[in-house]
This record gives sequence, structure tokens and C-alpha cells, in this order.
Amino acid sequence: MGGDYAPDIVVAGVDRTLVKYPNVRFLLFGDQAKLQPLLAQYPKVAEVSEVVHTDQAVAMSDKPSEAVRRGRKTSMWMTVDAVRQGNADAAVSAGNTGALMAMAKVQLKTMPGISRPAIAGLWPTTRGESIVLDLGANLECDEKQLVDFAILGESFARVELGLEKPTVGLLNIGEEELKGHDEIREAARILRENVPEMNFIGFVEGNDIGTGKADVVVADGFSGNIALKTAEGTARQFADYLRSALGRTIWGRLGAFIAQGAFKALKMKMDPRSANGGVFLGLNGLVVKSHGGTDAIGFASALEVAIDMASSDFAARAHERLAALAFHEAERPVGEMPTPGTDDIQVAEL
Amino acid sequence: MGGDYAPDIVVAGVDRTLVKYPNVRFLLFGDQAKLQPLLAQYPKVAEVSEVVHTDQAVAMSDKPSEAVRRGRKTSMWMTVDAVRQGNADAAVSAGNTGALMAMAKVQLKTMPGISRPAIAGLWPTTRGESIVLDLGANLECDEKQLVDFAILGESFARVELGLEKPTVGLLNIGEEELKGHDEIREAARILRENVPEMNFIGFVEGNDIGTGKADVVVADGFSGNIALKTAEGTARQFADYLRSALGRTIWGRLGAFIAQGAFKALKMKMDPRSANGGVFLGLNGLVVKSHGGTDAIGFASALEVAIDMASSDFAARAHERLAALAFHEAERPVGEMPTPGTDDIQVAEL
Repeated sequence: MGGDYAPDIVVAGVDRTLVKYPNVRFLLFGDQAKLQPLLAQYPKVAEVSEVVHTDQAVAMSDKPSEAVRRGRKTSMWMTVDAVRQGNADAAVSAGNTGALMAMAKVQLKTMPGISRPAIAGLWPTTRGESIVLDLGANLECDEKQLVDFAILGESFARVELGLEKPTVGLLNIGEEELKGHDEIREAARILRENVPEMNFIGFVEGNDIGTGKADVVVADGFSGNIALKTAEGTARQFADYLRSALGRTIWGRLGAFIAQGAFKALKMKMDPRSANGGVFLGLNGLVVKSHGGTDAIGFASALEVAIDMASSDFAARAHERLAALAFHEAERPVGEMPTPGTDDIQVAEL
Repeated sequence: MGGDYAPDIVVAGVDRTLVKYPNVRFLLFGDQAKLQPLLAQYPKVAEVSEVVHTDQAVAMSDKPSEAVRRGRKTSMWMTVDAVRQGNADAAVSAGNTGALMAMAKVQLKTMPGISRPAIAGLWPTTRGESIVLDLGANLECDEKQLVDFAILGESFARVELGLEKPTVGLLNIGEEELKGHDEIREAARILRENVPEMNFIGFVEGNDIGTGKADVVVADGFSGNIALKTAEGTARQFADYLRSALGRTIWGRLGAFIAQGAFKALKMKMDPRSANGGVFLGLNGLVVKSHGGTDAIGFASALEVAIDMASSDFAARAHERLAALAFHEAERPVGEMPTPGTDDIQVAEL
């Protein structure tokens, strides 16, 4: 078990999840000596879990290609392998993102027609929540990958946001049709012409993500990651300003005390833990990456996304949509293997 | 005169600027019939200004290449021309960003060794302010352009932030040396090996911009624009949440009333108008773009950046630094002309 605070937050996260999902069963891969005392603390988790022992774990600093080559006895590999073998419906890990992506690709392979998977996440907006992808698995994307991601993101939004016809936008530096580089304009053309059943709304800009202008925002992994982390940083900056502005005077402190209920509500609304969980889309099997530095509440959010997805028709729907796009069959390698060397540099740590 | 609220905000902005800079003189290019009544309202502005009449203006929807070809009598062209002819030390406009960039390139040409200019802006951080560039003039950048932008940004930071040795970082999706695409890793290598006098701190991530980890953050124009607009959107989102959380209960409203001084301070701190002004760096002459939708306060910020830069040794310093980089002289076209067609799609509206 990886992640900064594993296995404690994993077991405590499962415990939280059981309140809403009492019928889910868990396979816990990790060091029995560490897990047993935790399970004694959480008897409800012990009841629905089976421990599969391994004392090997992927480190946060391991290179993805190395992890794949030498890490076949690690808890991460065994977790993904359980999905491959059909023993689990989803794998959830708070460990090394690049290693998890590399192992997921090697073991589960990509869906027919998909060359590389994307990482998708929930983004809190003033209207509710949107899906943003790719958050860091693919630094550069051609038009076909962007189209794939739009289709995968749309299917994800159907499950996670419960929308029959989610709106889909491409992240760009302007809304006009002529803006942006070739790949993004070509992706827009393909979506408009070849995927007429999609509710594609064209280009959206960085400031449109937070307003929820599109239910699904599609970007290459570099821009998507920059947007995600810039938003996280700005939210933290705003919270710091607010705290220091209120703390500076006695009236500020008094006002903050009186309005403490409102500030608690604001804190919950802005809590990044409630939107935790990067879902790997485009694989023959479900893998969810939790933030490495999260706590039990955050890990439980990642588990809930995994459970929602596992109990949905996501895969069937995505398959159907992808198959309808003729160019996939002709031009794409099926289940492409990751290339060591490039994989070591391609995936951003969430 | 362009911009959404010109010429009113221009004249009112000059009036504000005169408080801090009473000795600056202004050339106002625009429709005399509209400007005269405004100048009657602002006698101090009338005293230090000369109106150069034209009734032609570039529209916000004009294509840059079209504006260059047919807009020789527009206020925007004439403003940039005044810099070219040495009649003005800087041009400031709230008009169409793409047209302004195209006109600036055609008239002023790029500095020796620079193939394309960048747009740089001030970014409020928890520590103070940082410089971020490129904000949208170059969708894709090779390693040499990123190195150029680092040098230009460093010189800008010396003037605008008053730092002798500003720290410079490259925006990336991870801090490790192996992260990011080829161009960005190669730019990091060049900065480390060939620009030893620079205080280059390596890669920074999106969440590092707001903490002020680097005084100068260098990015390609696509990522830089996405980061800028995502931060603007997130700040607005946070302000909306705060307002609605406080407005929902009587205690929230009471607390907000008591702490109103603190909220006013917060509002000023987050005010995007205080950091208004995208500076075009890399040209033989100074051009500053104000946000199109700003007011007099925002336009005054853009004017102040222009005045600071015009009264500094920015150009000399940047020249010296660029000349020290041997590869420029050998491999770069000098004063490259913009290519109509590509220019129409390359510049983001700020």
C-alpha cells in the first residue's frame, strides 16, 4: 500500500465508505502485520475485507518503468491484477501515479481504439461539479486522443453527474473557432461532424471551468494539470488572504466568530477532499488514483467514485460510442504497450 | 481608441495616473469630437495631453492580419507608430490584443535574436507579486523561445518588482528534472548551463504561482493563458461562495457587517485591476495591453506599468543578456515579420 499515510487512511476510508455502501466488499493488499491492528480498530471493515499479504510496496519515488519491471510482488501490482483477473471490480490506490498508470496499462490494456488512457477528475463549480480530463497522463495529445477523451469524459459524466446529455467543451485560449493549435481545432471539427449525438459546445476558456459552463472539459494532460494545480493554488491563496484579513483587527475576529457557521459551510464547499479521485479512463478495467497526501475523508471520496463507476454501464456505453467513430478501427493500434523511458516522464503526480 | 469603454476610461485613467506621475505627457489618439468633451471634464489631463485626431478604430472582432493591412489610419496603428517614430516612449491600448500584437511586430520589429514577442503580466501572490509570461501570444514555444522569455521576464522583474536577482522558474507538471516535454527540459538545461548568472530555480507547478515560489514564471502562451484564466475563474468562484455563504444566515450577515473592514481589504487584495497590463516583451519599443473590459483604475495600472518600464533600463539590460547567449546570433532571424493567417489565430484576448 502506497500513499503518504497508508495504510491508516485506507482502512479508515473504507470504514467511512461503509456507511453509504454497506454491501461493498474489499480486498486489502499490503503488509498483514500493519493491517491487522488497524482492522482490530475498525471491526466493520474487518468484516467485509480480505487481506492479501505482501510486504513489498511501490515507493513514491520509483520510476514507472522500474516499478512495472521489478514490482510484480508489490501491493499496487497485485491490486491491479485483481481487476485483471476479475476478482475485483475496481482498483483504488493513493500511491505513485506514474507507476499506477504504467501497471494499469500493462495489465489491463487500453480499450479497443484507445491509444492512451486519460486521468479524469471532478471539479467543483458554482453550478455543482464538472469533469475535467486529462489531468496529467498525456503531455501532448493529437486530435484523435482529444476526441477519445471527449467521449470517455461524456460517459463518465453520465455516471458520476447523472446527466443524460452532458455538455462537452474543449479547453482553449479563446472561444472563436479559429483560436488554438491545429490539434484542438481539428478535434472540434471531428466532434461537430462525426459525433453529432454529443452535446458539444465548442471551446471553453480557463475561467469557464469554475462556472460549470461545460459538464465535461477536455484538455491535453499538460494544460489540464496546469489548470488543476493553478486552481488549487488560487483557492489556497484566497483562503490565506481571507484568514489574514479577518485576523488583523478585532472587528474582523469578532465578525468571523459570529459568522463561523458560514465559514464552516464555505470550508466544506472548497474542501478538495470532496472531489478526490483521479479516474483512469480508457482501460479494460477500472483504476482510481487517490491524492497521495489525502486523509480518510479524501480516500473515501475516491472509493465512492470507484464504486459508482463499477456499478454503472460506463464501459459498455463508452465502447459503443468509441466503436461508432470509424477512424478508430482503421488507424489505431489496439492495447498499445507503454514504452519505458517515455512513461517515466509522462505522468504528473496528482 | 479601442477597448470596451474607451475613450472614457482612458481619459479618466490618465487623470488618476497624474497623481503619482505629474510630469508625464500624453498623446491621445482618437476621435476629437468624443475626446474634447471628456478633456473639458478633466482639465488636468487636457493640460498634459495632445489629441491626435482619427475617427478610425480597430474593432474587437477585427482579424489581426486585416487590421495590419487596412488599419493604417486607426488610433491603434497611430499609437504604435508614435513609439516607432520616437514621439512616444510607450503605447498603451485597451483594444484588440491580436491586432495590437500584429501592429507592434510590423512596426517595431522584434529585438535582435528574438523571433516572437511574449505577453507578460503581474500575478498577485501571497508574498507580493510575480511576473508570468507568456500569457497568450505564442501557442507553442520551442526551447529557445522559452529561454528568451526567461531572460525578458527577468529583466522585467528587475524593473517592476525592483529585484536585482529575481528567481526564475519554468511552469511544468512536476518538479523533477525528467518531467515535461522535450522543449521545456531542454530550456531548463540551457538556462542552467548557458545562463549561469540567472537565479534559475527549475520547474514550478501551477500551485506554486500563487505562493510566489518564483518571481518570474515562464510558460508557453497556451499554458500561461490557461493558468491565468483558471486563476481568475477560481478567485471569482471563491468570492461567489463567500458571498453566498455569508448571505444565507442572519449570523453570517451580521458577522460580515462587523468585519466589513476586513472584507474591504480582502477585496482590494484580490482586485484584478491592480495587476492590469499585459506588457509585450521582445520588441524594439514598449507596448502595454490593458484588459479590454477594465475601468479607469485598471487602465491607470496599465499606464503605470508603461511609465515604470519607459523610465527604466529594461531594453539595454535585456539586450545585453540576450546578446550573451551565443546561439541567438547564429540561429535566429532578426525582426521576423508576422505571417498573416497564423497571426489571426495565435494571440489570446486578455
